[in-house]
Amino acid sequence: MKKFVYSFGSGKAEGKTQMKNFLGGKGANLAEMTNIGLPVPPGFTISTEACNQFYKAGTKWPKGLEKQVDDGIKKLEKDMGAKFSDKNNPLLVSVRSGAAVSMPGMMDTVLNLGINPDVITALINKTGNERFAWDAYRRFIQMFGDVVMGVKHELFEHELDAVKKKYKAKQDTDLDASMLQEVVDRYMKIYKKVTKKSFPTDPKIQLKHAIDAVFSSWNNERAIKYRKINDIRSLIGTAVNVQAMVFGNMGDTSGTGVAFTRDPSTGKDMFYGEYLMNAQGEDVVAGIRTPLHIETLKKVNAKIFKQLIDIRKRLEKHYKDMQDLEFTIQEGKLYMLQTRNGKRTAAAAVKVAVDMVKEKLINEKTALLRIDPQQLDQLLHPMFDPKAEKANSRIANGLPASPGAACGQVVFSAEMAEKWAADKKDVILCRIETSPEDIGGMDAAEGILTSRGGMTSHAAVVARGMGKCCVAGAGDVQIDYKTKKFKVGNVTIKEGDWVSLNGSLGNVYKGKINTVESTLSGDFYTIMKWADKYRRLGVRANADTPHDTEVAVKFGAEGIGLCRTEHMFFEGNRIIAFRQMILADDKAGREKALAKLLPIQRRDFEGIFKALKGRPCTVRLLDPPLHEFLPHDVAGQKEMSRVMKISVAKIQNKVESLKEFNPMLGHRGCRLGLIYPEISDMQVQAIIEAAMNVSAKGTKVQPEIMIPLVGNYMELKIARERAEAVIANVFKQRKKKIAYKIGTMIEVPRAAVTADEIAEYADFFSFGTNDLTQMGCGFSRDDAGKFLPDYVSMGIYDYDPFQVLDIPGVGKLVEMAVALGRKNNKQLKTGICGEHGGEPKSVNFCHKVGLTYVSCSPYRIPIAKLAAAQAALGK
Amino acid sequence: MKKFVYSFGSGKAEGKTQMKNFLGGKGANLAEMTNIGLPVPPGFTISTEACNQFYKAGTKWPKGLEKQVDDGIKKLEKDMGAKFSDKNNPLLVSVRSGAAVSMPGMMDTVLNLGINPDVITALINKTGNERFAWDAYRRFIQMFGDVVMGVKHELFEHELDAVKKKYKAKQDTDLDASMLQEVVDRYMKIYKKVTKKSFPTDPKIQLKHAIDAVFSSWNNERAIKYRKINDIRSLIGTAVNVQAMVFGNMGDTSGTGVAFTRDPSTGKDMFYGEYLMNAQGEDVVAGIRTPLHIETLKKVNAKIFKQLIDIRKRLEKHYKDMQDLEFTIQEGKLYMLQTRNGKRTAAAAVKVAVDMVKEKLINEKTALLRIDPQQLDQLLHPMFDPKAEKANSRIANGLPASPGAACGQVVFSAEMAEKWAADKKDVILCRIETSPEDIGGMDAAEGILTSRGGMTSHAAVVARGMGKCCVAGAGDVQIDYKTKKFKVGNVTIKEGDWVSLNGSLGNVYKGKINTVESTLSGDFYTIMKWADKYRRLGVRANADTPHDTEVAVKFGAEGIGLCRTEHMFFEGNRIIAFRQMILADDKAGREKALAKLLPIQRRDFEGIFKALKGRPCTVRLLDPPLHEFLPHDVAGQKEMSRVMKISVAKIQNKVESLKEFNPMLGHRGCRLGLIYPEISDMQVQAIIEAAMNVSAKGTKVQPEIMIPLVGNYMELKIARERAEAVIANVFKQRKKKIAYKIGTMIEVPRAAVTADEIAEYADFFSFGTNDLTQMGCGFSRDDAGKFLPDYVSMGIYDYDPFQVLDIPGVGKLVEMAVALGRKNNKQLKTGICGEHGGEPKSVNFCHKVGLTYVSCSPYRIPIAKLAAAQAALGK
Repeated sequence: MKKFVYSFGSGKAEGKTQMKNFLGGKGANLAEMTNIGLPVPPGFTISTEACNQFYKAGTKWPKGLEKQVDDGIKKLEKDMGAKFSDKNNPLLVSVRSGAAVSMPGMMDTVLNLGINPDVITALINKTGNERFAWDAYRRFIQMFGDVVMGVKHELFEHELDAVKKKYKAKQDTDLDASMLQEVVDRYMKIYKKVTKKSFPTDPKIQLKHAIDAVFSSWNNERAIKYRKINDIRSLIGTAVNVQAMVFGNMGDTSGTGVAFTRDPSTGKDMFYGEYLMNAQGEDVVAGIRTPLHIETLKKVNAKIFKQLIDIRKRLEKHYKDMQDLEFTIQEGKLYMLQTRNGKRTAAAAVKVAVDMVKEKLINEKTALLRIDPQQLDQLLHPMFDPKAEKANSRIANGLPASPGAACGQVVFSAEMAEKWAADKKDVILCRIETSPEDIGGMDAAEGILTSRGGMTSHAAVVARGMGKCCVAGAGDVQIDYKTKKFKVGNVTIKEGDWVSLNGSLGNVYKGKINTVESTLSGDFYTIMKWADKYRRLGVRANADTPHDTEVAVKFGAEGIGLCRTEHMFFEGNRIIAFRQMILADDKAGREKALAKLLPIQRRDFEGIFKALKGRPCTVRLLDPPLHEFLPHDVAGQKEMSRVMKISVAKIQNKVESLKEFNPMLGHRGCRLGLIYPEISDMQVQAIIEAAMNVSAKGTKVQPEIMIPLVGNYMELKIARERAEAVIANVFKQRKKKIAYKIGTMIEVPRAAVTADEIAEYADFFSFGTNDLTQMGCGFSRDDAGKFLPDYVSMGIYDYDPFQVLDIPGVGKLVEMAVALGRKNNKQLKTGICGEHGGEPKSVNFCHKVGLTYVSCSPYRIPIAKLAAAQAALGK
Repeated sequence: MKKFVYSFGSGKAEGKTQMKNFLGGKGANLAEMTNIGLPVPPGFTISTEACNQFYKAGTKWPKGLEKQVDDGIKKLEKDMGAKFSDKNNPLLVSVRSGAAVSMPGMMDTVLNLGINPDVITALINKTGNERFAWDAYRRFIQMFGDVVMGVKHELFEHELDAVKKKYKAKQDTDLDASMLQEVVDRYMKIYKKVTKKSFPTDPKIQLKHAIDAVFSSWNNERAIKYRKINDIRSLIGTAVNVQAMVFGNMGDTSGTGVAFTRDPSTGKDMFYGEYLMNAQGEDVVAGIRTPLHIETLKKVNAKIFKQLIDIRKRLEKHYKDMQDLEFTIQEGKLYMLQTRNGKRTAAAAVKVAVDMVKEKLINEKTALLRIDPQQLDQLLHPMFDPKAEKANSRIANGLPASPGAACGQVVFSAEMAEKWAADKKDVILCRIETSPEDIGGMDAAEGILTSRGGMTSHAAVVARGMGKCCVAGAGDVQIDYKTKKFKVGNVTIKEGDWVSLNGSLGNVYKGKINTVESTLSGDFYTIMKWADKYRRLGVRANADTPHDTEVAVKFGAEGIGLCRTEHMFFEGNRIIAFRQMILADDKAGREKALAKLLPIQRRDFEGIFKALKGRPCTVRLLDPPLHEFLPHDVAGQKEMSRVMKISVAKIQNKVESLKEFNPMLGHRGCRLGLIYPEISDMQVQAIIEAAMNVSAKGTKVQPEIMIPLVGNYMELKIARERAEAVIANVFKQRKKKIAYKIGTMIEVPRAAVTADEIAEYADFFSFGTNDLTQMGCGFSRDDAGKFLPDYVSMGIYDYDPFQVLDIPGVGKLVEMAVALGRKNNKQLKTGICGEHGGEPKSVNFCHKVGLTYVSCSPYRIPIAKLAAAQAALGK
């Protein structure tokens, strides 16, 4: 018989933290805390495997589970000296979900399970707190009704409000025991009306239903959505934790709280948390009452506070990572209900990792592996321009719940946020408080603003996880969903108005604020230094201008992996010369126009070589089809006609003659340079002359000329020979030589499978994985939107292959090309310059197939470096 | 020292027929004929390797060649008892090119070499024929001047005409010796004026220059063009044949002729040739005088005729193939100047091959290998509808020089033919006679009409080689190049007018005539029977309708390899239902429209299954993007709006929303069926119900459902599961089952490299090599026209990869997919259904990589079968 149930209690547990996949995060850590002697209410965990088998059997309990649950209850009854339905000492339990990966608020929980009319009497007798007993009962009915039987929350709230109104009670706490008894009566009627059944009185039946409900919650819509958004895969199900109830709401000596062992926002080494006295745990997390800072607990109960400080140290020493913990105080006694590795911002992740190395808790390698490379994006995204921010008058201030800056149009529902975002609008989602149902809208929004809730409220936790700017609990903001407006002071903001949020300061501004680059901490550079120490893979940047090159060098680029020359042709007067070239009737005409472009290109390349200070630069020759340089609308054609003094008809004829059915597969890349070699000639000349000019002034240069879109070795052979002739001519004129490389992009599938032939004419391969994905998978990036999202939902592709390299398909082409290429050219350098070059999973792949370097946008260099280091460390 | 020069003469030769690559076709066969005792004027052959080294050394003679040529001349002088410049018995030689593959008229020849003022006297003394001597001299000067020194032909003709005018001579033959001497004088002056040099008198210098000229002619423009058009590759150069002159123009007992051992047009076993008495060989080939039928030689010289008949038999017995031979009679003595395998029409190739098997000259395998599969196209192309042809009044009749039917607009120059053809016009090239300069225009034309020349004229020989319809020597046709008109009787045809040619009958018609399918000979079916016997590869057809299926079966298709269902949606009312489906706002709307299409599709499939009589049928589910089914022009949209009673705006919105940047890489193929599964459901249901209906009537059925454009195994897995559910449902309703297969097209590169995964869900792979080429090579067929022709010229691709499968690239993907697929699925059937399936080189490749079958258009089935047999026979 398979063991599904693992007990913990009385200082001993069957599970341990390493059993996270099997017992879920919560269950494994409850066991671990029990084993290291922390005060954990006893209970047992039903494994994730049971949930898995539950689904496999068509939502039926696996064989043996019922017996094991019964045994678990028996042990629990023994540990607690209490029994289900006992007239003197009745056992109450909580039933909570807990998967291997934390999915906060996503799945269901039932508290106070075990109450029935008999137990109420016992509870009153035992606690002498009649109000507490009835309050526990009505909470239980409401949760059980909602979670287990699907009775709408609002129906219960409606009854509660009715009773409050009847007795003119403002707060729930104004209701006394008899009023709460009336609430219980009304709840029971609602329950029966909706479910057509009586509320079950047998705690075992209650438990069975509750466990079913937790299992089922694994596949409710919002849990599925959460897993999708957070890219949580291959979990088999949720565990179920059944644990003796402890109450934070048994009076003023009781309370409940959540805390982080360090500041999850900054990483600062301080105890960071919030609590509420006389409250149940959900009250803190839900953000309905605004909780107190943990430091104030010292005054309320110094002993408990000291005990917590001690536990904080023990947990960090034991887990060697920042912990996120939950506790309850029941009548002056502390109980630990949860610990787990704390979610943190990128800044905090960096600081905690560096600090823990200093504290000798972990080593550099572990520190590197601790940080999610993707998350670094938060640190690298631009912030508001401080001057602009200062100049704008702040309209509100809330908690700095998730750092960063965001600017967008206000919407008041998750649905609207998703809709507007789909229309390419930037939106700020404004909610009184958020709930798991809002996940989609939060993901779609640029930033989130709430008027209620603390740093550990749903909005704050989720936003930090998403790396999304969030200002929470901005109490002055009065939101009216009906009129789609919010008021703050005498300012009214309506749906569609622009606001700006500073999630690092908690500030809210009216209108748009310009952004500037973020500044990076010393710890960040420490992490980068360590990443450089352990990574094997080189990291270059994609940059097209001297300015971009400077940014790239600042971010630590070891060179340019892709310098696109076409962007250079769009600026100012250049486009005129370039269009003259396109419109020329013959080679002579083209050459005349190209002669005008030569000095301009040379100047650009000089700037880039200077900025690179000796680092290599891969320049790609003209790639896009010529029609991309001509205006396709009549207005643009008329303007061009006016400026260039050429008839509109001639321009239109050219546009027409250059039209392509599938521009992606058209006359572009090296196909341009082979049919109009004078274009490549000019570019090669400009590159080499620029390199020689910069070199002559004492700066080392490493020009690398890249022939794009090669599919057949003959294309590269011809293009290379031609380029070499041009270069030889420059050398002859200048009576001097410099070193250079000539290579190609591998972006056509045919190139990948014939890479052995191509490698004979290439000094390097640079994988253009954007195009290789388009041609390899046979879908154009511009058109795939009609089916690719569905494809990812259906599991056809694990990720959008334009974001994460499609390793089994496109990756196979890359791997094949590397192997074939190296076979015929031992010196071959290999890199990747598609957008995948800055995506951690793809970087990991690049390391594994042995590429020489990755190249990505300057802002993603730190991400690529960290991912490269993690790959080298065996991740 | 390398041996470059190979002698023949006096019954012994150093070369032999097997040395064709080294000695050229002409040289090797002159040696062979010498060795088997035929009367061949002695001489020697300079090898193709010498030509190769000539080019390698920058057009300089290789070391040792001069000495070997000197020795060759010495031996020749000895064999002939004659000497260069000898005052009594001077040696005259011909210098002719001769590559390993016949390139008729493409390279240069110099005759009568060795004449100088001394030799003239000797010639007159020796022959007693003063006129002959001067005529030989002027011909020599003209040829040498033209071929060796580049003095324009016309300049000499002008002088000749002047002398003829002066003496009122109508024909060249009206000029007597003294007049010819005057021509010689004038020629010498022209020669000196143009070349600034005196005409060389030393025969050795003449010979050196002539050999240089022949070497050089290998790379003249028309030779290069000829090799390109005829796909002649990897030859290293031309050989040079230096041979003692024999003269067909020494009077009425001399003559010259060309003959085929069988009729090259029909293959009939009859001696087939033409000759002219008192003429040099070039006179017959050039078509200037219309020659006599060979049979008439019997009356002129029965002995020589008998000798020729005897030689005809000996040559066929020796070479075991139909021969094309050249002979000269010098004063009653026969000399053989050439033999080679004769070019022939497809019909002749088939008949000769079958007849020679009957005659036990060759076996079936050799017979199969003798026929060029591509050439069979001639037999399979439609002919004129006999009724329509009869109804049209013939305006002229000429020689049936090359069979087939052609219809086009008249042009009068090769240049214009190429130009109009590039504009997609069908043209008929009309020339008085054609010359090698016209090759390009002949290739571009649909058919060729000449007013002068016989069955072995340039036009006739070249047209037959091209498999192009040609009517030659239509003497009534009076062509005026200047006014761009031709007159025949009282009919005037001007440039751009339509004419129709029947090349099998030699008829010319005014206007266009409808065509019908050709009828095939019994010999043709014999060849097909043998092909079936030896081939391993299956041959299926691509057919979309019951009618196409019938044609395919008639041509011997073993099934349908590709039945495209989309064409079915365009006919009549179907397009309305299909458009309703596209315009539907939701699934219910689509299903309603699809319900109308179901019975129509089912009926189509029933027709196809019936016509197949038990053969398998691969039906591809809907492939093209939906926008292809909507009108893109406003007029069409308005018409659609009227017919369907839907607003134009709604139609335009839909067109706009379906627009794609790269339709080739867009929402099509299985991507349609996965997003709108109801479409596939309907099609699968129609296929299976049709199959069951036909099966119920006793006809065997083999339905194969093909999911297009799969790139990821998950696509096929999902589509397959869905299709299987639909099929299971049909089986359940009918309480019956039939066998079926489900497979996929491999046309996306990703599919090829992950074929192992895909094969687990596929019963068969069908390579869609059209799309695989587009995506694999990264160029769209519609757009590649801008660079692909240049790419082929530059040698980047050997052939247009859309015509001949790109074996090193796309072929590698195919090979990989076959290997990977079979690894995971031993039962996997593999086929090809791109247009390459009917192209011989591609079929050969398909055999070699072990495909199960090829599928091609019905008209190409015989070609595919023959190519498959040749592949099996090791070609």
